[in-house]
Amino acid sequence: MTVQDARNIYREHIEKLHALGHAMGVLHYDGATAAPVESAEGRGKTLAYLSGCAYEIETDPALLEAAQFLKAHADALNAQDRREIEVFLRNNEYTASIPQAEYVAYVELLNRADAVWHKAKQDSDFASFAPIVKEIFETNVRFAKYYKPDQAPYDTQLGLYERGLTMEKTDAFFNALRERIVPLLKKVMAKPQVDDSFIWGKTYPIEAQRKFSDYLMDVITIDKDRCAIGETEHPFTTNFNKKDVRITTHYHEETPIYSMYSVIHEGGHALYELHSGDELEGTVLSGGVSMSIHESQSRFMENLIGRSREFIELILPKMQELFPEQLAGVTAEQLYLAVNKAEPSLIRTEADELTYALHVMVRYEIEKGLFDGSIAVEELPGVWNAKYREYLGIEVPDDRRGVLQDSHWSGGNVGYFPSYALGSAYGAQMLAKMRETVDVEAAVRSGDLRPITGWLEAHIWKFGGLYDPMELLERAVGEPFDPKYYTDYLEEKFTKIYGL
Amino acid sequence: MTVQDARNIYREHIEKLHALGHAMGVLHYDGATAAPVESAEGRGKTLAYLSGCAYEIETDPALLEAAQFLKAHADALNAQDRREIEVFLRNNEYTASIPQAEYVAYVELLNRADAVWHKAKQDSDFASFAPIVKEIFETNVRFAKYYKPDQAPYDTQLGLYERGLTMEKTDAFFNALRERIVPLLKKVMAKPQVDDSFIWGKTYPIEAQRKFSDYLMDVITIDKDRCAIGETEHPFTTNFNKKDVRITTHYHEETPIYSMYSVIHEGGHALYELHSGDELEGTVLSGGVSMSIHESQSRFMENLIGRSREFIELILPKMQELFPEQLAGVTAEQLYLAVNKAEPSLIRTEADELTYALHVMVRYEIEKGLFDGSIAVEELPGVWNAKYREYLGIEVPDDRRGVLQDSHWSGGNVGYFPSYALGSAYGAQMLAKMRETVDVEAAVRSGDLRPITGWLEAHIWKFGGLYDPMELLERAVGEPFDPKYYTDYLEEKFTKIYGL
Repeated sequence: MTVQDARNIYREHIEKLHALGHAMGVLHYDGATAAPVESAEGRGKTLAYLSGCAYEIETDPALLEAAQFLKAHADALNAQDRREIEVFLRNNEYTASIPQAEYVAYVELLNRADAVWHKAKQDSDFASFAPIVKEIFETNVRFAKYYKPDQAPYDTQLGLYERGLTMEKTDAFFNALRERIVPLLKKVMAKPQVDDSFIWGKTYPIEAQRKFSDYLMDVITIDKDRCAIGETEHPFTTNFNKKDVRITTHYHEETPIYSMYSVIHEGGHALYELHSGDELEGTVLSGGVSMSIHESQSRFMENLIGRSREFIELILPKMQELFPEQLAGVTAEQLYLAVNKAEPSLIRTEADELTYALHVMVRYEIEKGLFDGSIAVEELPGVWNAKYREYLGIEVPDDRRGVLQDSHWSGGNVGYFPSYALGSAYGAQMLAKMRETVDVEAAVRSGDLRPITGWLEAHIWKFGGLYDPMELLERAVGEPFDPKYYTDYLEEKFTKIYGL
Repeated sequence: MTVQDARNIYREHIEKLHALGHAMGVLHYDGATAAPVESAEGRGKTLAYLSGCAYEIETDPALLEAAQFLKAHADALNAQDRREIEVFLRNNEYTASIPQAEYVAYVELLNRADAVWHKAKQDSDFASFAPIVKEIFETNVRFAKYYKPDQAPYDTQLGLYERGLTMEKTDAFFNALRERIVPLLKKVMAKPQVDDSFIWGKTYPIEAQRKFSDYLMDVITIDKDRCAIGETEHPFTTNFNKKDVRITTHYHEETPIYSMYSVIHEGGHALYELHSGDELEGTVLSGGVSMSIHESQSRFMENLIGRSREFIELILPKMQELFPEQLAGVTAEQLYLAVNKAEPSLIRTEADELTYALHVMVRYEIEKGLFDGSIAVEELPGVWNAKYREYLGIEVPDDRRGVLQDSHWSGGNVGYFPSYALGSAYGAQMLAKMRETVDVEAAVRSGDLRPITGWLEAHIWKFGGLYDPMELLERAVGEPFDPKYYTDYLEEKFTKIYGL
């Protein structure tokens, strides 16, 4: 075998995997946005078949042989190709550690799980979801053990989403947050609450909200020729290649605010995928490097930009054009305060910036407990409600608004939640660094966000998977990760808003 | 090999083909309804890969061997299984006659063609489309010759859409239509035209039109848990299994009538797929048997039901509820006349029932000429315009509204057009038979269309591909196909409307 032979074999397999991933991605996207309700069973069969094909290609000995050959001849490769082989072999090790039948069975399980969870949430009936969530967690523990038999399974699981992440690091991170956020929240709650009543109690037609979404996509510089928006129950972003990215939102007639922040959040994910380096396209290095870095981008757009005073000033005229009666007389200051109202609440996706990390912490601790056996699936509603009482001081009235609210577990995204909090903290550190060279407020005020997106593209987006997440962050900000940028940001912002 | 072994091998292959077909179908559907414009290239690569996989499975010697074995042991099979093997082997013969590389290249060509045609139509620029349409026709001629070397290629092509159809039969059919329709149209044109001005010149909000679509789907008895509606440039129907059917429409703000008839037409296709016999699901016999029978169902709903006086009376109250100002004071009689206004026009999909077949005839004659070489691709706009002048008496102002209007050629649907006219004629013959046992007008008037859909299900839908199209029709109506039911229907209807 020559290096060129190995390269061809490798590339051909990657192209097939890409095509299968594309097809499965579109089936998922269509299932969540357009398909009729009874379509799940047929889609499950097709996904099971395609994932079996992908498994066979990914574990084809010829592919492994080619990749190992390239690794052994690394000096004949350029830096990008060396990195690609390294990342491929690392990912492959996980897949190959799982027996094919179990892999396909898991895909089928997740397809069933989605429908069961939807119904369970609708009926607020945890008991009907419990057997499925149990099976999903057991499968993930088993897979983690196949992959790294000598490591605590939840450390393995965390590492799948964020290379190098462990429970020890995550505990330290959440402790640092809790130490600052909990007292801050107490001080906030002792002050008079901001008034957001004016954004409720009216009807905001979906058609006008759709136009608002288009406008927001333009404002945050999304190229709509390469990124479309769909409608779904639980907003998400997916991408098939850098010319085909999809965001989704959910419109609520009673307020445009929920969809607005879904569009900006998912738009942040989309921007990352849309600006992955051209030279990475079609390789395993294309697109976002990890979920935490991904969430750093989405939450950067949503909160650091989208919940800034300047952003609200920028978009309010358009909102008043689209909703003239509903928002008559509303000032930017009023709206700024309203979208930053901080208070303990039940639903993570609707939580304010200040309490958000506490929602994530609940989920992290529960996952940890499910993995090490200290929490049983049957106890989940009780444990959930107790943690909400402890960290957020509120009573959960039903499982629909409690343990059943998120789609992550039914989607198999176990170990994902810490990414949201880590991403928020990464984003704050990036913002601090960005400020050294970019007048962020002036850019937002001008309506031309390119100085901001340009910085993100140059320091994060274009690198795709070229560096591990921590290295990427350190290269971008010039120092190791430090959560104090995030807690400082929260303290400064909410001290001003609530006059602490 | 035992019959059971052969059965297993056969079934396993069919399931894989079904999964690949499902994935490709969703990619197409998503591409036409939801995908961003620059997504075509990536989708093309994925479709090429998946179609290559499907080709390999369909031409796998093990599958052929199993199917031939089952054919040789037909007495061990029940009637349905015998029929399935017969139909599979017949379809397989066509695919297997095409070299794999050419098959995949054609899939890629069609994917490119779609974007080229869209742009050419937009710019009314036939020259940019000509090389592609040439390649598509040449490929179809070549494939027809691979399949049936000793037969006129266009006969082969017609037979792919409607088993047993030939140019001789199609010529005879169109001659029979022309003989009756052309003089009838002349008489109509000599009479004062009906007034449809009241349905134009207003704005019909898309949001209300979407609600109207939902209502229409209910009226024609579509189960929305198994059939969703999407929005696209050129409405079409697709199905992945009988629990997952999709119709599409295109909303025009200036009138609800275009979308209304798209929904009813595509709904007719959907009903056929949704009611294919349960016992056929997952076999090659599931779903519609041919495009002509399919069009007989869609045009039955669109015209024989949807353009009837009783249907207009039934739905007008709902229309006036959704469009109160736009349709204030409009009577059912006025609307009935307006949706049946007959006059020569440029666009096939917007043509009235009377002139529709003439639009189809133009396309049929052109395809015939392109296949036998008597028409060159470069001459297409001139030939098109001359035929519109001859048959419809109108001048085509530009290619956008002429030869570039339809998506069929860029989609590779060469030989499809006659299905529309044949389907219309089949439908009229079915209606005549249905009237012997069903009071069609009373059913529509009552708003409960199940006596009508029940007849269609019992005589057409449930049989899927169990019978060849002509046999299915003859079993349903109790005699051979006769176009006079169609021409009689048109003559009676338009004689009354125009007081001839």
